[in-house]
Amino acid sequence: MKIAIAGSGALGCGFGYMMKKGGNDVTLMDYWDAHIQAIRENGLSISVNGKEDNVSMKIGKPNEIQDTFDVVFVFTKSMGLRAMMEAIKHTLTDDTKVVCLLNGLGHAKTIAEYIPEKNIIMGTTVWTAGIDAPGQTHFMGEGPVEVQNADPSEEEGARQVVKMMADCGLNGVYSENVHFTTWRKACVNGTMNALCSLLDCNIEELFHTSESDHLVTEIITEFSQVAATESVDINVQETVDYVKMTAEKVGAHYPSMHQDLQQNKRPTEIDFLNGAVAKEAEANGFSAPYCKLITQLIHAKEDIYGIKR
Amino acid sequence: MKIAIAGSGALGCGFGYMMKKGGNDVTLMDYWDAHIQAIRENGLSISVNGKEDNVSMKIGKPNEIQDTFDVVFVFTKSMGLRAMMEAIKHTLTDDTKVVCLLNGLGHAKTIAEYIPEKNIIMGTTVWTAGIDAPGQTHFMGEGPVEVQNADPSEEEGARQVVKMMADCGLNGVYSENVHFTTWRKACVNGTMNALCSLLDCNIEELFHTSESDHLVTEIITEFSQVAATESVDINVQETVDYVKMTAEKVGAHYPSMHQDLQQNKRPTEIDFLNGAVAKEAEANGFSAPYCKLITQLIHAKEDIYGIKR
Repeated sequence: MKIAIAGSGALGCGFGYMMKKGGNDVTLMDYWDAHIQAIRENGLSISVNGKEDNVSMKIGKPNEIQDTFDVVFVFTKSMGLRAMMEAIKHTLTDDTKVVCLLNGLGHAKTIAEYIPEKNIIMGTTVWTAGIDAPGQTHFMGEGPVEVQNADPSEEEGARQVVKMMADCGLNGVYSENVHFTTWRKACVNGTMNALCSLLDCNIEELFHTSESDHLVTEIITEFSQVAATESVDINVQETVDYVKMTAEKVGAHYPSMHQDLQQNKRPTEIDFLNGAVAKEAEANGFSAPYCKLITQLIHAKEDIYGIKR
Repeated sequence: MKIAIAGSGALGCGFGYMMKKGGNDVTLMDYWDAHIQAIRENGLSISVNGKEDNVSMKIGKPNEIQDTFDVVFVFTKSMGLRAMMEAIKHTLTDDTKVVCLLNGLGHAKTIAEYIPEKNIIMGTTVWTAGIDAPGQTHFMGEGPVEVQNADPSEEEGARQVVKMMADCGLNGVYSENVHFTTWRKACVNGTMNALCSLLDCNIEELFHTSESDHLVTEIITEFSQVAATESVDINVQETVDYVKMTAEKVGAHYPSMHQDLQQNKRPTEIDFLNGAVAKEAEANGFSAPYCKLITQLIHAKEDIYGIKR
């Protein structure tokens, strides 16, 4: 397949590398000059589950790419998705599939502003990745990459992407439940990520406070109420238990939003988690005050740190 | 008058000193050993609006005091009020007036667990004070000390306390509106104090964020709804404007709750501000989710800091 990676940070490079090694024609797209230059001059240096490799990859800024593609994987931050869709639209044909594995809520609607629903493939991944230097990344995982067609009648395209990923060692899996899985992940991020960022603490510290049960339950209740408007059934108690079990597994770890806000002073993805729930609640005629206040407080903290949004 | 100060920190020493200089028989009560010892050995050293003095004062722990008093001024932290009332009840007669000038909500109810309403005098003060060392304090102000009898038919006792304070240079003023003034001060503290503590910022930083208008308006709306159940009319827009005007006056200052939580890692008075509003809202059959969440988040932060409540 002819594949583009729109947003070639750590995860984008990992996916691009695996798909190229699997025999596909892969083009990376990104905006980071030093990263682009390093990959052009020295190839991509990547460690996959500890195994080092170096491979020549095509890379350029979206406006420099004149090709069109069979499949585009978007790997931006949530708040960069719309701008990226705008920047790559000349590389999309009437049949190009766009695969979105981003965390957070509302992305399918954003993508649908640019392409027909039949071409949208939503998914989730549990692979993780990091950037060590421009042109040098690592990629870790083995868990499934679950995908599903947004348009129920277009299963065939998603099945082809699943097969391609499976052939490349990415453990592609066709899912009937991507929407549910996305909401469930959002429940984890909308509690642990949001609260650890706001309270400047790690996950273990959060769950040792006297308030964590109340906080997590209230937030997930609001997520569940909005999920129901999209016909997704989030069982509050079961999800609270799942979040607590996840928290116990990860322990004294700082979630990614904490790294963004408190450590690196970067904009957070709060608008695509608690912020999206607050907004959708209001669009549906009810309120989600915990999600709304948490979103406002995170934005206030971004402002205090001088973070530009 | 025979007067006791129950809680002789900075403000208690200031009031006690002024009332003793004005000719009253004043006894200080406190629990801080070093402070008690310093005052017993060297007298109280105090600076009032910059003017230094040293005066011999009676001081002891509540259980060491066997006298009874005409008037007791309580100057504890909000969360120490109940324990202090318990500790001093042997010093109260059927006619002892208890004067409470504490910030925060719900104190009259706590005092009413120990004495008849006819003996309760509620008030507010804008004097400020600090402790420089055990036995050494400063006291600043000139503004009014407004007081009012809790029982509407018992104005005479409050009038006597007003006259006594006025005679001592404390600018005692009889007020018809102490309940309103208390709620209005609570609105200031429940917005600026609570939010600056949670966001670890000063007042100027808070009011420069894009979210401050929403946050302050939502919180004051909840305060106003609960105030209405006590027949206190808090006009939301007027109070929001008042809070913003107050914020502009004080500027890049850290409010006292920020000092407690973030600087000194001490328990906060949140339960007597936003926490009291959340609780009273629920007791009245509605909810105050912003106040409730803010209270939970502050308590979570206290827990993270290992602050014992």
